[in-house]
Amino acid sequence: MQTIAEDDGAVVILDQTRLPQETAFVRLATLADAAHAIRVMQVRGAPLIGATAAYGVALGLAEGILLETILATLGATRPTAVNLHWALDRMERVLQKSSLASVAKERRELAWSEARAIAHEDAAANAAIGQHGLAILRPLAEQKKPIQLMTHCNAGWLATVAHGTALAPIYAAQTAGLAVHVWVSETRPRNQGLLTAWELAQAGVPHTFIVDNAAGLLMMQGKVDAVIVGADRIAANGDTANKVGTYLKALAAKAHGVPFYVAAPISTIDFACPDGAHIPIEERAAEEVGVGATAAANPAFDVTPVNLIAGIITERGVVAADNLASVMP
Amino acid sequence: MQTIAEDDGAVVILDQTRLPQETAFVRLATLADAAHAIRVMQVRGAPLIGATAAYGVALGLAEGILLETILATLGATRPTAVNLHWALDRMERVLQKSSLASVAKERRELAWSEARAIAHEDAAANAAIGQHGLAILRPLAEQKKPIQLMTHCNAGWLATVAHGTALAPIYAAQTAGLAVHVWVSETRPRNQGLLTAWELAQAGVPHTFIVDNAAGLLMMQGKVDAVIVGADRIAANGDTANKVGTYLKALAAKAHGVPFYVAAPISTIDFACPDGAHIPIEERAAEEVGVGATAAANPAFDVTPVNLIAGIITERGVVAADNLASVMP
Repeated sequence: MQTIAEDDGAVVILDQTRLPQETAFVRLATLADAAHAIRVMQVRGAPLIGATAAYGVALGLAEGILLETILATLGATRPTAVNLHWALDRMERVLQKSSLASVAKERRELAWSEARAIAHEDAAANAAIGQHGLAILRPLAEQKKPIQLMTHCNAGWLATVAHGTALAPIYAAQTAGLAVHVWVSETRPRNQGLLTAWELAQAGVPHTFIVDNAAGLLMMQGKVDAVIVGADRIAANGDTANKVGTYLKALAAKAHGVPFYVAAPISTIDFACPDGAHIPIEERAAEEVGVGATAAANPAFDVTPVNLIAGIITERGVVAADNLASVMP
Repeated sequence: MQTIAEDDGAVVILDQTRLPQETAFVRLATLADAAHAIRVMQVRGAPLIGATAAYGVALGLAEGILLETILATLGATRPTAVNLHWALDRMERVLQKSSLASVAKERRELAWSEARAIAHEDAAANAAIGQHGLAILRPLAEQKKPIQLMTHCNAGWLATVAHGTALAPIYAAQTAGLAVHVWVSETRPRNQGLLTAWELAQAGVPHTFIVDNAAGLLMMQGKVDAVIVGADRIAANGDTANKVGTYLKALAAKAHGVPFYVAAPISTIDFACPDGAHIPIEERAAEEVGVGATAAANPAFDVTPVNLIAGIITERGVVAADNLASVMP
């Protein structure tokens, strides 16, 4: 239940384009491998993209590629998830600091060690998110059995190095013996809901698959007690970019008094981005939508405004979405 | 561009389960054929379901089946679209009135004639809806070129006997030389957006296909000037049941000041149904959602509350959704 691991100077990932039909691993041996894996979504989910990019820097340095080239290559893979840039900035800072004093070999080792630290910290942050989210779910569990949760896309362990973000509190609740049931939305066009259903089935968490369109009706019918989603980039004011369709669920949650939570490590908060209007929204290939004759638009993310968000579940606790300064590093 | 036609004592329909890949016709010769066509969605769309049911009564009587049996069989095919019951009630009223005086042959002819009238009236009502909707679009066209419209599911000529409901104003605008562009949403799980894209392509109306999840982002980005959808049942208070996912679009439209219109003939208004909570929501087979291992829920409709609706475009003009009594027959 870990998505990425080192393997003798290379990195092994679980190929998420082949899940859930097939559990296949891919070995990333070069910078190009890492960039490709991010671009074609063999790895996906903002935290995992960040960790993969960090390892990509180590792979590129081992090939003798210039750091600037490495950073530019990986930075251009996908535009919305800020963890990518966060990880690259962190690698750059550490490596630049060291470059004056150290020889190439030491620098390469430093890159591996920093990438490893990023991966370990992500897993630890998500474990903490699980516990802080559990504290939200416990009082709900006293009123409702099971607690009816809804999520969107996949923000489980597959989207991170380990544990997941939005699913971490759900796994923690399951472990703590709380009765939960999860509405899993398909998440067109890439159907990441299948990944979430696969994860939940593996963990024995009761769940029901729905098309994205059904979310509003279920909330109107009182069948949803809380929504928890992940995030690809949270602006400084709390506006949150996540997989396209998230915003529609947030609107429906607001209309029916259902609390809408975002679960994300602090590395997903872009303190340099003032608000949602400044978050770049990736437009992916029309072919993903799957119509031949007709033109298609395929924005991969949307922005949920801060006023629809009940709280951000971070590794440092649940914070109000309009008070992110309190967790600024 | 007509979905249903008489053919020598039988009825011929366009098989909508095979569109847009294949244009195939199905001959309905018996009551069972008609009930099957409605149930498996060879015909779909509330007005067309109504017309098909009316012809189904004529087919059943020609077989010598008891009227009560015919009405019960057709009435049980699909629960949400009220046009089904409206058409059956109308057939029953006309036939019961006549039954005392007329012989079986005359009664059968009366059934054909009334079914024919229902079909003709639907086509005429939708043509009028097109003109009344055009009156809404004209002022928009003076401000924006093209007018950006969004629809959901298919409420074109395929969903009716002819002309369509939600698409009727769009066709009328195209004919009147207004520049329009339509965002066509996929409409999972049955993908009726493909039918809408096919219709619009045939008519030369510019359009772009999107996944259902993208609707909120497009409205936030100011790329939608109005939403027009059809309806399966409008309660007396204006709450409107339509294809699942409609409600999410209505919420997003409200959030961004985009007018949200429902286009429907008066036969879609259920004056006996007080509000949306009393509209039965069809739950269809989980297999339609297309996941094997995991449980799935598949509600086919949702309810858009009256306060989200800018107006109902009927054959008698555009009426406020909270003032339906003004068009009560």
